[in-house]
Amino acid sequence: MPHPEPPAAETGAEALVRTLIGAGVDTCFANPGTSEMHFVAALDRIPGIRCVLGLQENVVTGMADGYFRVTRRPAATLLHCGPGYANGIANLHNARRAGSGILNIVGDHAVPHVMHDSPLTADVDALVGATSDWHVFGTEPARIGTDAARGVAAAASGHGRVASLVLPADVSWGFGGLSAAPLAPDAPRPPDPAAIGAAARALRSGRRATMLLGTPAVVEDLHPLLAGLSRATGAELIGSPMIAAIPRGRGRLALPTVAYPVDEAIRQLAPFDVVILVNCPPPVGFFLYPGRPSLMHRPDAEVITLSRTGQDAGAALRALAAELGATPSAIPAAAGGVPGVSGALTPESFAATVARLLPADAIVVNEALTLGGGFASVMPHAAPVDWLTVTGGAIGGGIPLATGAAVGARARGRPDRRVVTLQADGSAAYTLQALWTQAREKLPVTTLLLNNRAYAILLGEYAKVGAQPGQTARDMMSLDRPTLDWVALARGFGVEAEAATTVEELEPVLATSLARDGPTLVDVRFAG
Amino acid sequence: MPHPEPPAAETGAEALVRTLIGAGVDTCFANPGTSEMHFVAALDRIPGIRCVLGLQENVVTGMADGYFRVTRRPAATLLHCGPGYANGIANLHNARRAGSGILNIVGDHAVPHVMHDSPLTADVDALVGATSDWHVFGTEPARIGTDAARGVAAAASGHGRVASLVLPADVSWGFGGLSAAPLAPDAPRPPDPAAIGAAARALRSGRRATMLLGTPAVVEDLHPLLAGLSRATGAELIGSPMIAAIPRGRGRLALPTVAYPVDEAIRQLAPFDVVILVNCPPPVGFFLYPGRPSLMHRPDAEVITLSRTGQDAGAALRALAAELGATPSAIPAAAGGVPGVSGALTPESFAATVARLLPADAIVVNEALTLGGGFASVMPHAAPVDWLTVTGGAIGGGIPLATGAAVGARARGRPDRRVVTLQADGSAAYTLQALWTQAREKLPVTTLLLNNRAYAILLGEYAKVGAQPGQTARDMMSLDRPTLDWVALARGFGVEAEAATTVEELEPVLATSLARDGPTLVDVRFAG
Repeated sequence: MPHPEPPAAETGAEALVRTLIGAGVDTCFANPGTSEMHFVAALDRIPGIRCVLGLQENVVTGMADGYFRVTRRPAATLLHCGPGYANGIANLHNARRAGSGILNIVGDHAVPHVMHDSPLTADVDALVGATSDWHVFGTEPARIGTDAARGVAAAASGHGRVASLVLPADVSWGFGGLSAAPLAPDAPRPPDPAAIGAAARALRSGRRATMLLGTPAVVEDLHPLLAGLSRATGAELIGSPMIAAIPRGRGRLALPTVAYPVDEAIRQLAPFDVVILVNCPPPVGFFLYPGRPSLMHRPDAEVITLSRTGQDAGAALRALAAELGATPSAIPAAAGGVPGVSGALTPESFAATVARLLPADAIVVNEALTLGGGFASVMPHAAPVDWLTVTGGAIGGGIPLATGAAVGARARGRPDRRVVTLQADGSAAYTLQALWTQAREKLPVTTLLLNNRAYAILLGEYAKVGAQPGQTARDMMSLDRPTLDWVALARGFGVEAEAATTVEELEPVLATSLARDGPTLVDVRFAG
Repeated sequence: MPHPEPPAAETGAEALVRTLIGAGVDTCFANPGTSEMHFVAALDRIPGIRCVLGLQENVVTGMADGYFRVTRRPAATLLHCGPGYANGIANLHNARRAGSGILNIVGDHAVPHVMHDSPLTADVDALVGATSDWHVFGTEPARIGTDAARGVAAAASGHGRVASLVLPADVSWGFGGLSAAPLAPDAPRPPDPAAIGAAARALRSGRRATMLLGTPAVVEDLHPLLAGLSRATGAELIGSPMIAAIPRGRGRLALPTVAYPVDEAIRQLAPFDVVILVNCPPPVGFFLYPGRPSLMHRPDAEVITLSRTGQDAGAALRALAAELGATPSAIPAAAGGVPGVSGALTPESFAATVARLLPADAIVVNEALTLGGGFASVMPHAAPVDWLTVTGGAIGGGIPLATGAAVGARARGRPDRRVVTLQADGSAAYTLQALWTQAREKLPVTTLLLNNRAYAILLGEYAKVGAQPGQTARDMMSLDRPTLDWVALARGFGVEAEAATTVEELEPVLATSLARDGPTLVDVRFAG
């Protein structure tokens, strides 16, 4: 895209908008405040960036994460001062763990106002510094273009990073703004030949090996190569639990991931003498428990890092295959379709119903750790889809991710891609406001609200403490007094909603929702 | 309260709970996660702390703020790891500006797990350090009681502070816990005699003076003294815009506060040659605007700080009165009751309707900056109430504050105190989940949802930029596509709800809600 010619005298905000457009930023997820009004005015005057409003900042940052996972291009966010930015930190945490590129524009007080410590003054530098991969504090209109160009490049570097630009109001409104030409992001670094050699030797040794795969190692193009490597070496392929987007369905690898429950993960990795890490960290448990280890692999296993975060996973896998003489291999097609089911909704019948109706190129967002497990056996028979998870463990990612994913698909000319969210009820309550953005933008999102009326994951965790919960503990983990009426909540935000308690009820509701122009929420009630 | 005797061998979590109970903490607002399960188990086993669940962390911290403003005693919060704490920062910001005492218990990973950088690992120290007045990182079960006792004392010191205790999971589950006796908080410091003398000289000088009053200067007991000082000196009394709780209604001072719009505030303070600050900062605008000053008083005015944050406001006012020979004066009673109104809902008819029905000792929470202005003329005729505002400018304080205020009144043996929330719709959407806690706890809260379907305050701010908003700008400030159905949203959270478009509709709905055991939301639709 040619860099737009700046007019003679523009504000910092105008220079910033022009720089963002020149750098290919086409979407700004926003929850603006007073100090950003001149930036809003610049977005209004200069066409080229579509603004998508969120009712709360964690919705905004989660949408930007979903947008990147679908487009691989950074969006901007617009957030207000310290507390506004703080509201968005949780989903920025998830975005960093996903390797998603985002450029936050954080409005702040005019610089001469900060010393007066007005009510909304906060230590935005400390907050941004602790929670972004890269940040800069805007200092003058003449520099803001350069700052923004560096920010977009930082967000797009490696496999994607969270970058933040603090924009004081007076830098925004001041004249003398200069836009800047786009800067090239850093490409992923080449792999380390010594690591390739070490992995090849281990895979040739005859010991039992697994390759653990992070986000850039599981893109669809690499599936035949991964299948070939597995066939040639006998290594089992397992996904990291934190993959930003996994291609699943017919024609793709059926990739198990490291289990969330610690004892299950330890059993899963116990057979392996060799653990080869491909763009992912060692398999660490989400939490440490008394008497359990932090790492899930066998303590005596050899752990080899084939490629790290920021390195080119594809190049590493191709080099490894060349070293081993492995060639790409066709993915074996699963026989038959998804089996038909009927009757009460269980995790299994639910998964089969959804998998059978998923259209090709759908995007599935999963924030249903305790209820989403029935999909492993049916997904190899389903249409090909992209499967997104909440990567960082911060609750409340699902609905915003799905919203941003749909915006991203639309921005890339694929408004037809359906988004299906597998959403636990407890987590949904953190960021349910994102439903409103789905309605406003008429996004093709179906939220399957898995209603177990509890923090089910906490009830499981509490059991590990070794005590029966009394009334106080139960009250801190149950959502049944009163129950949340998700149909009413969704309609309150302008989203169509129905409930389903059997396969026979779910099927037509889901099918209808998948043919509808806008969003739907289905309150899915499991048996028992 | 006697310090409970600890048993021979307890966990860090149990020692912590026993220490909190011994220090008088009776309420814990909670949104727990996995790393806090042993703390939840200890709260379950050791009676004495009532746990109140919030569906999102900013609800939790806002409730703790409301609790303190009503009880003047710190509650605990229970928050989960870095992103969980981050979700609560915005309302902690408001709490710090209110001078509210809170002790956050922030669960974190077991210490040996942190080096493995598991998905939910975040820089909790940086976040807590940037946003709390005091914090400590728990290091061992034998010290956690001392840490907690220091934390409660820190939270209760001065006029109240935000304190945080990071609780690693292994410190929580480890044995060898030792509880600790309560520590005395620091009392407010005595006033500075030189400041008293300077203020007295200025007030005797014959120049026109105002006394700007912060939270500790406006407690009900001081109203007769304030009235006497004003009568003796001619000084006008004006409240800071950030007062945590103002006593209003019959028998109390009718105290104007510094206006939010900058030009209005400048006009309001223009007459004064002398500005005397009583436990509040100089009158600073919320934001700086091009061509406007940061400070709202006349540039040539003499500004005298009578007493600062952390000093004893009552002692300062009494010393000043003694110096000037001023004596307490009866508050002149306003003649007649609140006037009757009828017809369409306007800011004025709305205020009159509410003011007339407010019961004595009610608590009013105001997060309706653009619509709450009609109350100034009617409140002197209303029953005596406490009036709470969102002090720090971080959006989304109202519903959580009201919820915590009701919990606080109940904890102090006054479950009959009604809470009425004046709540703008845009702000409500940030933390609407707090409605669920109102339903669960059956709290006597009436939320008057002031439905203008826009970020009205931003539309006003945008106008100051000097441009007509185009479609992009309008879309970032309007909430009308789709409109939020607040009746459906409230019912979804288990709260009774009705709509009202005229005085005749509002009156019976409000009266019924004020007689009901549990919460109600009224969707208030203004004319035009």
